[in-house]
Amino acid sequence: MTRPLVLYPDRLFPADPGTRAIARALYEGVKDLPIVSPHGHTDPAWFAYDAPFTDPASLLIVPDHYVFRMLYSQGVALESLGVPSVDGSLVEQDPRKIWAIFAQRYHLFRGTPSRMWLDWVFAEVFGLDVLLDESTADHYYEVIDAALKTEAFRPRALFERFGIEAIATTEGPLDPLVHHRAIRESGWSGRVVTAYRPDPVVDPETPGFAAKVAKFGEMAGEDVSTYAGYLAAHRFHRARFREAGATSTDHGHPSARTADLSPEDCEALYRRVLAGASKEDAELFRAQILTEMAGMSVEDGMVMQLHPAVYRSHNQAVLDRFGRDKGGDIPLPGEFVQALKPLLDRHGNDPRLTLILFTLDEDVYSRELAPLAGHYPSLRLGPPWWFHDSPEGMRRFRERTTETAGFYNTVGFNDDTRAFLSIPARHDVARRMDCAWLAQLVAEHRLPEDEAHEVARALAYDLVKAAYKL
Amino acid sequence: MTRPLVLYPDRLFPADPGTRAIARALYEGVKDLPIVSPHGHTDPAWFAYDAPFTDPASLLIVPDHYVFRMLYSQGVALESLGVPSVDGSLVEQDPRKIWAIFAQRYHLFRGTPSRMWLDWVFAEVFGLDVLLDESTADHYYEVIDAALKTEAFRPRALFERFGIEAIATTEGPLDPLVHHRAIRESGWSGRVVTAYRPDPVVDPETPGFAAKVAKFGEMAGEDVSTYAGYLAAHRFHRARFREAGATSTDHGHPSARTADLSPEDCEALYRRVLAGASKEDAELFRAQILTEMAGMSVEDGMVMQLHPAVYRSHNQAVLDRFGRDKGGDIPLPGEFVQALKPLLDRHGNDPRLTLILFTLDEDVYSRELAPLAGHYPSLRLGPPWWFHDSPEGMRRFRERTTETAGFYNTVGFNDDTRAFLSIPARHDVARRMDCAWLAQLVAEHRLPEDEAHEVARALAYDLVKAAYKL
Amino acid sequence: MTRPLVLYPDRLFPADPGTRAIARALYEGVKDLPIVSPHGHTDPAWFAYDAPFTDPASLLIVPDHYVFRMLYSQGVALESLGVPSVDGSLVEQDPRKIWAIFAQRYHLFRGTPSRMWLDWVFAEVFGLDVLLDESTADHYYEVIDAALKTEAFRPRALFERFGIEAIATTEGPLDPLVHHRAIRESGWSGRVVTAYRPDPVVDPETPGFAAKVAKFGEMAGEDVSTYAGYLAAHRFHRARFREAGATSTDHGHPSARTADLSPEDCEALYRRVLAGASKEDAELFRAQILTEMAGMSVEDGMVMQLHPAVYRSHNQAVLDRFGRDKGGDIPLPGEFVQALKPLLDRHGNDPRLTLILFTLDEDVYSRELAPLAGHYPSLRLGPPWWFHDSPEGMRRFRERTTETAGFYNTVGFNDDTRAFLSIPARHDVARRMDCAWLAQLVAEHRLPEDEAHEVARALAYDLVKAAYKL
Repeated sequence: MTRPLVLYPDRLFPADPGTRAIARALYEGVKDLPIVSPHGHTDPAWFAYDAPFTDPASLLIVPDHYVFRMLYSQGVALESLGVPSVDGSLVEQDPRKIWAIFAQRYHLFRGTPSRMWLDWVFAEVFGLDVLLDESTADHYYEVIDAALKTEAFRPRALFERFGIEAIATTEGPLDPLVHHRAIRESGWSGRVVTAYRPDPVVDPETPGFAAKVAKFGEMAGEDVSTYAGYLAAHRFHRARFREAGATSTDHGHPSARTADLSPEDCEALYRRVLAGASKEDAELFRAQILTEMAGMSVEDGMVMQLHPAVYRSHNQAVLDRFGRDKGGDIPLPGEFVQALKPLLDRHGNDPRLTLILFTLDEDVYSRELAPLAGHYPSLRLGPPWWFHDSPEGMRRFRERTTETAGFYNTVGFNDDTRAFLSIPARHDVARRMDCAWLAQLVAEHRLPEDEAHEVARALAYDLVKAAYKL
Repeated sequence: MTRPLVLYPDRLFPADPGTRAIARALYEGVKDLPIVSPHGHTDPAWFAYDAPFTDPASLLIVPDHYVFRMLYSQGVALESLGVPSVDGSLVEQDPRKIWAIFAQRYHLFRGTPSRMWLDWVFAEVFGLDVLLDESTADHYYEVIDAALKTEAFRPRALFERFGIEAIATTEGPLDPLVHHRAIRESGWSGRVVTAYRPDPVVDPETPGFAAKVAKFGEMAGEDVSTYAGYLAAHRFHRARFREAGATSTDHGHPSARTADLSPEDCEALYRRVLAGASKEDAELFRAQILTEMAGMSVEDGMVMQLHPAVYRSHNQAVLDRFGRDKGGDIPLPGEFVQALKPLLDRHGNDPRLTLILFTLDEDVYSRELAPLAGHYPSLRLGPPWWFHDSPEGMRRFRERTTETAGFYNTVGFNDDTRAFLSIPARHDVARRMDCAWLAQLVAEHRLPEDEAHEVARALAYDLVKAAYKL
Repeated sequence: MTRPLVLYPDRLFPADPGTRAIARALYEGVKDLPIVSPHGHTDPAWFAYDAPFTDPASLLIVPDHYVFRMLYSQGVALESLGVPSVDGSLVEQDPRKIWAIFAQRYHLFRGTPSRMWLDWVFAEVFGLDVLLDESTADHYYEVIDAALKTEAFRPRALFERFGIEAIATTEGPLDPLVHHRAIRESGWSGRVVTAYRPDPVVDPETPGFAAKVAKFGEMAGEDVSTYAGYLAAHRFHRARFREAGATSTDHGHPSARTADLSPEDCEALYRRVLAGASKEDAELFRAQILTEMAGMSVEDGMVMQLHPAVYRSHNQAVLDRFGRDKGGDIPLPGEFVQALKPLLDRHGNDPRLTLILFTLDEDVYSRELAPLAGHYPSLRLGPPWWFHDSPEGMRRFRERTTETAGFYNTVGFNDDTRAFLSIPARHDVARRMDCAWLAQLVAEHRLPEDEAHEVARALAYDLVKAAYKL
């Protein structure tokens, strides 16, 4: 028996009719604002060459670790979902079979944001009006597959249809940025910028670190045998990224630790990590480089983002067989107060610095992040991240940060995704949840309604443009 | 002036009328499902011999640490509540006096789940219709005492009246399980199974550890002077428990730490802990045994439960005078990501293992537990535990775990109690709170109502039976 | 365009009409109860000499770190707000200019409790009926400035108008308490008491610690070269403070750590810290003194308050230029279970001790504080503190502590403020939020309405008087 697929206009709004009416009015004022996506992981090649997406499974399942981690947690082998193996051994190649496995288990996603994003994609992007399940799997596959073969579903057409004003991708420091150049040279009007994520040449625990640093120096024409040369190479690459539109850097570290060592200690530490770092030296080097990056941001105006405290690739067997980013990343406790002190002592009061902080440890919202951002002029709070990029996660973020940090020390929404088709759905969830929160404040007479309208617009559009200089 | 005691049909449902109506409809579909109680601390002797409960105080106050901890916190001496002393020195023996102290202070329980469970017991089990307070204390005592003397209030009659399909007790590894045998041999149809809780022979810090291990080996006919013999004894006792119906093991450790040492290191560690363990060796031994237990679960199919991170018997004076389990246990911070890695590296991807995790540190729900259970096929989330087995605790559990782990990586409800009469009340609270949460999802258009009905049934009945193989 | 300033009678009550009606009824019963303010930082000189407040900026902005920290976080220099510099270098002196900067940026406070408190002060105390912004800045300044010049806005008149039954200030151990004496000797009927906050002679990391201890001994007539003499000096000063009305002590430590050393170890430790303490010795000394203070509270009946785990003056540049208490204090993780054990082992079961615990780490509410206070007869939970003294903070406090600790292990509200004019607003927020929480319990049939009325009164008035012996 087929069930209908319906996107209710009032979804995510509070159930109380009075509050809901306020939320609806607030949302009316922001729902059609352009999307500014300042941090994410879409592939610039899509926009550079505008090739069609190949099939439903390769587009919506194989690359989406939110989707396959849930299926894996319920006993579905990653091989059967077509997730490529490291050694090239055979995994499922038939997208219809992959799709069928997913469709059969779509109930596993009940209550998750993936369900909400996917339903939006199915209904809004592909016009489907029945719910996905075993009985509708083939119908879904055919409708989506047929659509993907049309011009209207090419990356650029979708970009325009989605109302994206600007989107940032994220590239490593050795990336030649050819796709971004191709986009610019194509004459297409879509704004796709990069972001500088130097982790591979900052984290001595990266496999092949020394070789990567050597390449990094070579590309920059700098002698990276010295720390000074290494820093100069960063300046070169930051400038190179800015030419490809970058307005921000991004740093994904195991902790938020920062350091501010003497030049001599930096030089000695750098030599040690190039030779093969101890765990403590690796941590100290990453810590020192965060402070250096903040200093360079003061110089060049690039906004700095810090995404700390994730245990990457916790599942050793999955890492060995399928590589990184396969759903096995698990959050760690956050600590910012001691960790950021050296960086903040050096640059925290400088109005030219914007350092945007993210966390996966929600206890930190009210204990550390809101108090820090509510005081230091350089600090801003990034939106709820990753596992918390969800209705409840967004609710907790506002409930726990607003009273101490206010709205204006936050920076709007990041979709942070490689799932391109879900981008409007994610921004829509954020806008709805912000309006829901504001509606509660209005209904409880904690904020006048006219001011709530101004805040709603700021959260949906103004703050992100200002913070990221987009 | 006597106040009425009323159990409102809509209790615990959201106040918003629309949402409440949805919750009511969902609850209607699950309220009469049988109770499956996969983890708890009832006394199997009750069901084996079906002796009447002696009096109201001995049944409802003296053994209930939720009740006497609150009274103690407000200055009531445990002696006056009849809590037995370790040295046998006199404590209050008159159950009427104990009852009077409790009744006078019943207002202290306002807003607590104890109040809700007790009111349910008073109204539903005993048919009382006035509120307990000083003025009604005698009436209560007489009504309850009279009821307990009747056939209808014997343990087996209540078991049947409560609609219990299956209940698990928890026994130590040296328990001869005679009561469970007596239940089976009695021909009574009630399903009462045991669970294997080997802590006394796993935790070297248990008083008399070496002697207990010796007894453990003797009962098994194994030479426990070697680690191999010690593991063989576990296999023997696990099989013995399975014969008494056990489908699960349970582990109450000071932390979730696991280890995966070489056989030589295990042997050496085992010898050291038998001789008298250092604190670090004790922790390491417990850690290693968790991994061994997981391995044996892979072999024999027993579901593994981990209840970590409680400071047991924090109040030294109470421990000295009254012994363990007297309300002085206090939660500790949880840490699972680093702690479980050795066990998960060894067995975490094995579909034959089910490891159910519990926590008393709620920050861990969204940061660690939901991400872990939403990825590893072996992991499931136990329901909110102990201090969090309450309406707000249940609400937080669903709010913080659903979006990352979904519903199907959870395992329904555990009452975890020795308060037999409160078991239906506790399951009823869980069913109501789950329906309340689902109703909110439906009202906010985050889940279609027909799917919510399926989930409600899964949470109340299907998931617990599947996870615990009951 | 001027916007109206309206204080809605139903503010902070839940939006659901049924629940709101219950909240309104509960609030009706407590809104006019006298204010008991057992812990705060008002200046006793105000009440001693009843001098008029000088101007709007000096009253409402310059001393309020909630206000200037938010402005500073958005790039406003503290100099321009008239915050005095340590070296006496010039800062803004014109209160009109300070006021204008604040007024222009009043939107930054949207969603914060400062906004709610200030709006209350503007509307209720000064009768303003338009919203503060750039266009109304001058009007505000003139209205407030004119009012402050009248008799009705002197400290004592406001004290009486606010319905304050008793208020506690907080003084250091070297304070001569002359203002409190002046109040008593003036014949004025207002009850203003002090509280004993010995941190400067307890924390060896205080600048000039040894000299302060010497002064402390000299004032007491005790030989503080020995630990015994040092303790005797505490007894002297505690008695001196009690004469100035004190019923409580207060302790602001970097952690909740306590210790219970042997007399010899205390003596040796004391000698070491007088000579210049190591970090670890300083921590151990503070820990030991907390246990000593608990012992003295057993003797003299003073209620003990512990406010732990804040990183004071995190912003080094602000500390250097403007000194302490300038908005740069940031919370740290809380830990009470291990930390309090030595003190509780010694005094935790003594009914003569009341130790009131505060935290800025909200995860600790349900994990540690509620379980501890729900067991130990000496422990009580202070209200949500500082950054959490807000509607959402209060909601979380009740949601996370009530079910384990109940209502009667909490102690009502503390305003903890130096912002005198906001005191009624803060108590009003607490009363409203408690009524909102109780209304939810009533609406969800978790507490009968008549009992909720009793609890509302206890939370607003009875519990604070009892706990603080006021």
